[in-house]
Amino acid sequence: MPSSRFDVLGLGNAIVDVIAKTDDDFLVAQGLHKGGMTLIGEERAEELYKAMGQTTVVSGGSAANTIIGAAALGCRAAFVGKLKSDELGAIFAHDIRAAKVAFSTGFAPDGTASARCLIFVTPDGQRTMNTFLGACQDLTEADIDEEVVRDSAIVYLEGYLWDPPAAKAAFVKASKIARAAGRKVALTLSDSFCVDRYRDEFLGLVRSGSVHILFANESELHSLYETADFDTAVAALRAENILGVVTRSEKGSIVVTKDEVLAVPAAPVEQVVDTTGAGDLFAAGFLAGVTKGKDYTTCAALGSLAAAEIIQHIGARPQTDLAQLAAQAGFAL
Amino acid sequence: MPSSRFDVLGLGNAIVDVIAKTDDDFLVAQGLHKGGMTLIGEERAEELYKAMGQTTVVSGGSAANTIIGAAALGCRAAFVGKLKSDELGAIFAHDIRAAKVAFSTGFAPDGTASARCLIFVTPDGQRTMNTFLGACQDLTEADIDEEVVRDSAIVYLEGYLWDPPAAKAAFVKASKIARAAGRKVALTLSDSFCVDRYRDEFLGLVRSGSVHILFANESELHSLYETADFDTAVAALRAENILGVVTRSEKGSIVVTKDEVLAVPAAPVEQVVDTTGAGDLFAAGFLAGVTKGKDYTTCAALGSLAAAEIIQHIGARPQTDLAQLAAQAGFAL
Repeated sequence: MPSSRFDVLGLGNAIVDVIAKTDDDFLVAQGLHKGGMTLIGEERAEELYKAMGQTTVVSGGSAANTIIGAAALGCRAAFVGKLKSDELGAIFAHDIRAAKVAFSTGFAPDGTASARCLIFVTPDGQRTMNTFLGACQDLTEADIDEEVVRDSAIVYLEGYLWDPPAAKAAFVKASKIARAAGRKVALTLSDSFCVDRYRDEFLGLVRSGSVHILFANESELHSLYETADFDTAVAALRAENILGVVTRSEKGSIVVTKDEVLAVPAAPVEQVVDTTGAGDLFAAGFLAGVTKGKDYTTCAALGSLAAAEIIQHIGARPQTDLAQLAAQAGFAL
Repeated sequence: MPSSRFDVLGLGNAIVDVIAKTDDDFLVAQGLHKGGMTLIGEERAEELYKAMGQTTVVSGGSAANTIIGAAALGCRAAFVGKLKSDELGAIFAHDIRAAKVAFSTGFAPDGTASARCLIFVTPDGQRTMNTFLGACQDLTEADIDEEVVRDSAIVYLEGYLWDPPAAKAAFVKASKIARAAGRKVALTLSDSFCVDRYRDEFLGLVRSGSVHILFANESELHSLYETADFDTAVAALRAENILGVVTRSEKGSIVVTKDEVLAVPAAPVEQVVDTTGAGDLFAAGFLAGVTKGKDYTTCAALGSLAAAEIIQHIGARPQTDLAQLAAQAGFAL
């Protein structure tokens, strides 16, 4: 692979998370689908916000969380995502730059507010997400800087980008430029309901060679191949002849290639507080490993380490120095 | 005491905390006074924000934190504080209402933004605060609802209110109404530098009978009586003939009256993450105890319990159900 300015470029919805603890009764009363991500409009966002308890506000966004984590593990990183010039937008932009990630997407014109995700965390640590996409709807092809894409070893895309209609075009443009430049394209499936919405398109991306690395959790994988049987789903993934990475919560993760299926255990966790960002940070650790030329078992172990950090506190951005954590665990990055 | 609609009414600066982890070198490089609270202007706030790492945004404000904690422990609570109608203002208003605290202060007219406190947390858990007062400067006597003050068993005031010039008048007005109605007035000294700025006025309040309950930590007490000797300071406090409550971090707290000095140990803590709000939540537990007619040892133990919760995570608003925590610890509230 030719040398590059960035190890990884992320493209995703730029979202600020608004997180509150709640109980299962609240989810039922509000008709929320536990563990999933639901798209909501402005009015519903206001209604839900009114009903939610005291909040913690932390920058989020799936691909953004991943890119931040990768940067914390020493990757040279960049991000593309759309904000409005409001207070939440300022918070997101500050936080991603504070993490030393190159971020220069222009603000959306006046209109919809910056995106927010109202996240309800139940006592079991599970999160239920409700996203008002807002300014993310304004991400377009024009936001893709060809030169930056060509200069990034890996372009990382989130499945959620399929939701804002114009963002899909940005996604496809970035993927094409990357492939033409001999770069790797990675995709995370984001959410099983997201896979339900765009199954054929995601499979098309995988089968057309548009995606080289695919991240999924168990339920996303089951949804992708429409099977309840894990082994059947893994066999189907293996047949795609790409690099597949499947996270399985406390059961660890598996790395699937044409040649082998590697199982890697999860990292130890004292107490699960909030699982928001677990998959995102797993991808961060895995990509950091790939970037540093590690074998897949090490990549997955790095992913587990980063995921273990994120689920022990509220919010999907690391609160501990991940590079230090990795060094303490014996990883040479 | 006549019956009342509210157990406790708080009057304070309405502030949103913007918290980042950092190291001691950063504090030195930025000329920040570790452990203290410094007032900053808008330009300095922008400069510091640019320099700070990734943030967690959580509602704060000293008296507000106390009132929220008291409400979580079953007190009927109300709060007065000034915001602007912007996103941070909306966050503060949402969070305090979500905590079931009556809050109806009108928004400040267009102009300065809602207040924010940039908080730097070092690896030892200490916090260094930098407050841009913003809309808090617009709190005036007109914001004091006589009826609400008369209908609150305890009016709780923060020393920080002495900083925005017009707020002092609001403070004095509330205190006068409360006393005339036979209510108790509590004051927290807030910060040793705050005491330095207003020592004579605070002592005047105590000695004129304007304050019945005084909260302080060790350094505030030393500053108040301008002595480095703890016993000398405690003797001076005892001579004031009020109810004095002094917090001493891991050494616990002491309750000082004319008749006795009670020492109460701190509650056990696994790991100190962020000490922001420790004093505020101690006051919350103590006031909840007073409200429920508990003896002072129990009041202080409740304070320690609430303080222990707050220092084990980022931010000064409880993340655990304090009432449940108290029940588990054997308190009957």
